[in-house]
Amino acid sequence: MKHLLSIEDLSAADIHAMLELTDHMAEVSSRPIPKVPALRGKNVVSLFFEDSTRTRTSFDTAAKRLSADTMNFAVSSSSVNKGESLRDTIETITAMGVDAFVVRHKSSGAPQMITKWTNASIVNAGDGWHQHPTQALLDCYTIRTGLNRRDSFDGLRIAIVGDIKHSRVARSDVQAFAKLGAHVTLVAPPTLLPPSLEGWPVEVSHDLDALLPDLDVLYLLRVQRERMDDALLPSLAEYSALYGLTHARAARLAPHALVMHPGPMNRGVEIAVDPADLPGSVILQQVTNGVAVRMAVLFTLLGSGSVSSIGASA
Amino acid sequence: MKHLLSIEDLSAADIHAMLELTDHMAEVSSRPIPKVPALRGKNVVSLFFEDSTRTRTSFDTAAKRLSADTMNFAVSSSSVNKGESLRDTIETITAMGVDAFVVRHKSSGAPQMITKWTNASIVNAGDGWHQHPTQALLDCYTIRTGLNRRDSFDGLRIAIVGDIKHSRVARSDVQAFAKLGAHVTLVAPPTLLPPSLEGWPVEVSHDLDALLPDLDVLYLLRVQRERMDDALLPSLAEYSALYGLTHARAARLAPHALVMHPGPMNRGVEIAVDPADLPGSVILQQVTNGVAVRMAVLFTLLGSGSVSSIGASA
Amino acid sequence: MKHLLSIEDLSAADIHAMLELTDHMAEVSSRPIPKVPALRGKNVVSLFFEDSTRTRTSFDTAAKRLSADTMNFAVSSSSVNKGESLRDTIETITAMGVDAFVVRHKSSGAPQMITKWTNASIVNAGDGWHQHPTQALLDCYTIRTGLNRRDSFDGLRIAIVGDIKHSRVARSDVQAFAKLGAHVTLVAPPTLLPPSLEGWPVEVSHDLDALLPDLDVLYLLRVQRERMDDALLPSLAEYSALYGLTHARAARLAPHALVMHPGPMNRGVEIAVDPADLPGSVILQQVTNGVAVRMAVLFTLLGSGSVSSIGASA
Repeated sequence: MKHLLSIEDLSAADIHAMLELTDHMAEVSSRPIPKVPALRGKNVVSLFFEDSTRTRTSFDTAAKRLSADTMNFAVSSSSVNKGESLRDTIETITAMGVDAFVVRHKSSGAPQMITKWTNASIVNAGDGWHQHPTQALLDCYTIRTGLNRRDSFDGLRIAIVGDIKHSRVARSDVQAFAKLGAHVTLVAPPTLLPPSLEGWPVEVSHDLDALLPDLDVLYLLRVQRERMDDALLPSLAEYSALYGLTHARAARLAPHALVMHPGPMNRGVEIAVDPADLPGSVILQQVTNGVAVRMAVLFTLLGSGSVSSIGASA
Repeated sequence: MKHLLSIEDLSAADIHAMLELTDHMAEVSSRPIPKVPALRGKNVVSLFFEDSTRTRTSFDTAAKRLSADTMNFAVSSSSVNKGESLRDTIETITAMGVDAFVVRHKSSGAPQMITKWTNASIVNAGDGWHQHPTQALLDCYTIRTGLNRRDSFDGLRIAIVGDIKHSRVARSDVQAFAKLGAHVTLVAPPTLLPPSLEGWPVEVSHDLDALLPDLDVLYLLRVQRERMDDALLPSLAEYSALYGLTHARAARLAPHALVMHPGPMNRGVEIAVDPADLPGSVILQQVTNGVAVRMAVLFTLLGSGSVSSIGASA
Repeated sequence: MKHLLSIEDLSAADIHAMLELTDHMAEVSSRPIPKVPALRGKNVVSLFFEDSTRTRTSFDTAAKRLSADTMNFAVSSSSVNKGESLRDTIETITAMGVDAFVVRHKSSGAPQMITKWTNASIVNAGDGWHQHPTQALLDCYTIRTGLNRRDSFDGLRIAIVGDIKHSRVARSDVQAFAKLGAHVTLVAPPTLLPPSLEGWPVEVSHDLDALLPDLDVLYLLRVQRERMDDALLPSLAEYSALYGLTHARAARLAPHALVMHPGPMNRGVEIAVDPADLPGSVILQQVTNGVAVRMAVLFTLLGSGSVSSIGASA
């Protein structure tokens, strides 16, 4: 495995293997000194064309726990702003010595394109509406540990609620959850669904309340306020009334059901309940797992030797 | 000691203990390789809602000398700007694994509030007009070493001159200096004094010249140009004439007296003399001591074992 | 050698010694773990008053390969913006403990000035139109290895083409190439030549095509679009027609000739050919060599012991 560009490229077995490795990385992360020398001397460069302190910090933390060096290539102050082509930027940074680029870009397919211009590994940290594969992996890991489903997601009922149309998280999660055997239902106003769902292994519903009691996982997406400006949403209040997680809805969830969100949350819109009051909320656990999953991804792409080589703290 | 929020929380004995530890950290800092493994694997996150390269760099240097990992959470490009609440931001970063937050915020009390949302330690690096406790500790350390007063400040005469009203440095220093036994006089135009000084262990004077010959320490505060716009100051020239350190005033200081300033200086306003020409200036020594004091604070909050465990260079 | 401010300060022997040391650093850079402990505990601070992600990243990578700590002092958010003088900024950072400043500034001579205010070493990373000495060293190293000229550049014919007038790269390269024995010709429209070339060890030509077959090195400078606004250039198309590297011109170069550019390239202006299609292009090799040269410079300024002490990987 040279790059991580899309969940599409992974088989169910690939995903399970990555989640097994994540178990080891979670153990490392729980140590008093959560640091191993596995990627010592490797250089991991963040290349974020869209701001995301949260995701960048998660990758950064993961890289440092493996003793890699990290660099944040600040796009805003770089030669990209002097008219340099993306290709020249990539080739230039590569020539300084880079082992992996972690790329976020507003255009779908940009990370794939970048693989042509460098021999470094590429990790897609979100490209347009297309893919965000490490988010899908951390979501799988969170469900796997939260519901104790190590072998498969067969029979799990997962609803993904919100702005499916513009969401790379939804696209990646649908693929990953389905590959592991889950039954996925999308819940959204028609304006926030893609024009066609042909080939998506999902059902669609507009009635969240009917679904709630049978769900194992309720996955809430972030509603972006600019969707109202685009006239795709009548009002945030109406969205909240129909699709938001209210106290009444939370009460209808099964006791074991997990509530998930990729963050950052719009409190009062897609989630009106304080997650701290929801026994099933694993929203912060997702953040914690995100670091362990990204350690597993970086080790898979850049590490040498088996996982046993990551044993002792650095 | 879990947090450092305010000088108010510290007894004279606490302050003396921190200054003793600072002696060890100053010794580490003077080594050819000024680095010890004391906080290896600990993660210190800077969370600055107000810019301060100077203070952030000082904490960063301190953390690195103790081998901690450091991260600068750039508020301006973070989800705080997408409407995420401060609480969600704190909980999210905490979930990635943080041992201490170093917080600067324009609102008094913000660092205290943050302690409710995380199990990490909080160091207040300045909150509104309220507190800046590491500044007070570094100022105490500078006086302690500069005047060789290891046991107490009994009988020392210290004047703090300038914009007391808006100064967290003044509030913190007054408390710390008084706890150690010093006699503190505030010197300022009436518009730059707080409405009430009830409970402040100070005297007030408007006549700097009369005080000068008896001072052991002359502490100059930064005058902010926006105070003129607020009509609290008639002009910088008038301020300088009445309260600035001119050559004539410098000549009236006792030979042993220290001149201090928290930086950055407005040359020509509160200080018209070049500090390099003042034998008593310890302004740069304050900066150097700031790193050692912050090492002591971070080690106290995050370190395990006694100070002897910081012995050998990493 | 305490500072690196200008190629003028170096003899041919100094340059050769630095290039010898660069050979060692290139070997370190080619290792699986490209990291040695040579500068462990040293603190290298980047102080860039002009943005340059490319150069800053190169120095940063170099410092990290030698295990130095690095800090980026962000001028835009620093006290320089609160009116603090450059001198106070330098003295303050110095007081926190700095071993070397890497300085870029728009004013010629700023790095030299800074040497008066600190005991740290200064590396000039570009000052106005004046000097960019590490660029000249990496260019010499690239020619030395690319043409296998370890002992001297005697008899080499080098053309530097483009905006000589505003180029610190041109000024530095002319001096370095000439010191090593090369014969340098400047090629530029008259408006982009300095008013006087008295004392420059160069010839001048306005006819690039006539020169091409005899060149060992064709060095293209970046053409800045603002020169058109300044009315120094009629149009980029005309510049490209007269001075750009087209396919036709590339075909007239000798098979062994090197094509160089300091980056970032304006494709279609000074270079119309894809460098990937030019056998003689060493433009990316320049970037790679830049890291090794900067390691050599930092080790020379800050290292103790001989080069043999950099032996084993950290």
